Amino acid sequence: MNREDRYGYGMKVLEQVDGEAGQRIVDSLADTSPELGHQVVAWAFGDMYSRPELAAKERQLVTLGVLTALGGCEIELEVHINAALNVGLTATEVSEALLHSAVYCGMPRSINATLVAKKVFAERGLLPITNLS
Amino acid sequence: MNREDRYGYGMKVLEQVDGEAGQRIVDSLADTSPELGHQVVAWAFGDMYSRPELAAKERQLVTLGVLTALGGCEIELEVHINAALNVGLTATEVSEALLHSAVYCGMPRSINATLVAKKVFAERGLLPITNLS
Amino acid sequence: MNREDRYGYGMKVLEQVDGEAGQRIVDSLADTSPELGHQVVAWAFGDMYSRPELAAKERQLVTLGVLTALGGCEIELEVHINAALNVGLTATEVSEALLHSAVYCGMPRSINATLVAKKVFAERGLLPITNLS
Amino acid sequence: MNREDRYGYGMKVLEQVDGEAGQRIVDSLADTSPELGHQVVAWAFGDMYSRPELAAKERQLVTLGVLTALGGCEIELEVHINAALNVGLTATEVSEALLHSAVYCGMPRSINATLVAKKVFAERGLLPITNLS
Amino acid sequence: MNREDRYGYGMKVLEQVDGEAGQRIVDSLADTSPELGHQVVAWAFGDMYSRPELAAKERQLVTLGVLTALGGCEIELEVHINAALNVGLTATEVSEALLHSAVYCGMPRSINATLVAKKVFAERGLLPITNLS
Amino acid sequence: MNREDRYGYGMKVLEQVDGEAGQRIVDSLADTSPELGHQVVAWAFGDMYSRPELAAKERQLVTLGVLTALGGCEIELEVHINAALNVGLTATEVSEALLHSAVYCGMPRSINATLVAKKVFAERGLLPITNLS
Repeated sequence: MNREDRYGYGMKVLEQVDGEAGQRIVDSLADTSPELGHQVVAWAFGDMYSRPELAAKERQLVTLGVLTALGGCEIELEVHINAALNVGLTATEVSEALLHSAVYCGMPRSINATLVAKKVFAERGLLPITNLS
Repeated sequence: MNREDRYGYGMKVLEQVDGEAGQRIVDSLADTSPELGHQVVAWAFGDMYSRPELAAKERQLVTLGVLTALGGCEIELEVHINAALNVGLTATEVSEALLHSAVYCGMPRSINATLVAKKVFAERGLLPITNLS
Repeated sequence: MNREDRYGYGMKVLEQVDGEAGQRIVDSLADTSPELGHQVVAWAFGDMYSRPELAAKERQLVTLGVLTALGGCEIELEVHINAALNVGLTATEVSEALLHSAVYCGMPRSINATLVAKKVFAERGLLPITNLS
Repeated sequence: MNREDRYGYGMKVLEQVDGEAGQRIVDSLADTSPELGHQVVAWAFGDMYSRPELAAKERQLVTLGVLTALGGCEIELEVHINAALNVGLTATEVSEALLHSAVYCGMPRSINATLVAKKVFAERGLLPITNLS
Repeated sequence: MNREDRYGYGMKVLEQVDGEAGQRIVDSLADTSPELGHQVVAWAFGDMYSRPELAAKERQLVTLGVLTALGGCEIELEVHINAALNVGLTATEVSEALLHSAVYCGMPRSINATLVAKKVFAERGLLPITNLS
Repeated sequence: MNREDRYGYGMKVLEQVDGEAGQRIVDSLADTSPELGHQVVAWAFGDMYSRPELAAKERQLVTLGVLTALGGCEIELEVHINAALNVGLTATEVSEALLHSAVYCGMPRSINATLVAKKVFAERGLLPITNLS
């Protein structure tokens, strides 16, 4: 595959996760770092997300854990909370993943991520979430 | 103690630190992660803050160090700079704690935390701070 | 539930994840911070892990993401890579979760976590892993 | 040198890097932590930046790497992306340094830093950047 | 004060906190980064620790919070847990500060720091600690 | 280019930086995460390092900044301090880059990275370093 093929393939994978948000990020990087936009699509999605070793839901659970722990990734969390819902996780499961993170990275990171989830859930009409317990 | 008792007890401890801000956080989480709000009150305050091994001022000094080092915790720093003042630390001592952190986590984290302190001190009419040295 | 009941309940939940490693951590903390050992069991496992909103496998995927991103958590990663295998994730899935993290927290954190996985997989006779792709 | 001399000397060094932005930070800290403002000038610039062991461009490359990795340092990144351009790095080189960081600290930190660069480059009329490859 | 005076003054302040450990760090840096050793003494202790705005105990509480949150600072934690005991904090208070940090930066960072405290407390014959509650 | 071509191309780029150390990392990952080893070579070196927008020395300065700030990356710092020397930075410049980082990520990260440099410099017979100032 050449460079354009790799991008095209990555974009197809991205479209199954969150194509619109992905395109927005690529567009926002176009004049400042076109290569970063290319790598998000061609590498992160084309090379990594496309692998069958983990299901789409499982990739988003890992991603939510990493982004919550890093902190300061509100933009990316918004993309990936949407992505998590797009691939079939429920709002309850997303909320629980962010709660669970508090054990390992503390309350502030968990609260900050949950406030991003609140925004996404509100936009998608998913509030209030339903708890099982 | 049952679940409600633990929450009630935590809320009493929280009220001695910063009840109003604590309630605001719990409220903001209510529709997205009610359990996270519950754990902030019942666990963080009911189980941890209530222990006599450290004085309230000392807990806030540790908390300011952790939150400054983590970065990206402006919301939580605002709560805990208020809390630090509520339990008897002076604005000078709070400012100095954030300055001291610069040795260990660098200038940017210290500056960012100090700009949150500036906002809190201004709201409470404590600017300019008085330095001893 | 009283304090002892909460600990006992947490220990039952912990035993379904990684009882032996959990007990080792509690024991190692007994003379320095018995309360920390208590909270790991009573709070982290009794309160958080016991909730039905996420399956055991899903909790470990989030945990692996958080611990990989934090860095410097080799001891805890060893516990949770074992835990992940105990609750039914395959070595291939664990390895892939750590690889996936590289997109979000970079190659060094991913490599460091993978070297912990190498140790755990070796001890359990799981090397070399089998890739699907 | 006395305290004032050290400050004066640091300010001269700072002026060669980004005097206006530096003065703005010192001013913003004046009523809350005058000592932090003093140390930014007298220590960071007077003691550290003034050393001949690294060229000005090289110091900014290291600084961009550190600030991108830390995350949550948008204010400081804005200062230092301007500083990097002031001391002779091109917009292409700055953009590439932030892209390169993605290998080591992941895509989100790299994207966040690049969006700060986008703002700075736009203000200075440097968009779109010119890539060599 | 000239450069040597500043170093001498810092060393006097350092001696009141943990002179032996401080000297060991300076010595270990002597052939690789003599300036870093100089700055630890002349700046961190001479400029920052010497200020009267916070008591020695209070500086160590902030320091323990920052180092616990950063992670990967076992060498520095060992110095500062010793320093905390040297300036009058009890082992119980140190242990509690590390426990308290768990609320804000999670269990793994708190456990890792507590295991450093275990080593220091053992060397000083302070185990087991005595809890008040 | 197909998958093997991309790997081969990356390995050529890696050989100009630190081929031996790179091969050691790929080998150490072979049974646990062969894809991670592949991506380090094919993506990090083949796609990113090969770009002409930054010189090899400049890439290592950014890398040293990122790795110092992250913390807990002693293995990777050892590779990249060697790499920095391989591409023409002097020991004095490497040491200064790690010292400079202290301004932005604090003394402990800077000390930890410098102790890795001490080990590398000793192995290469470069101690003591020569300072210009």
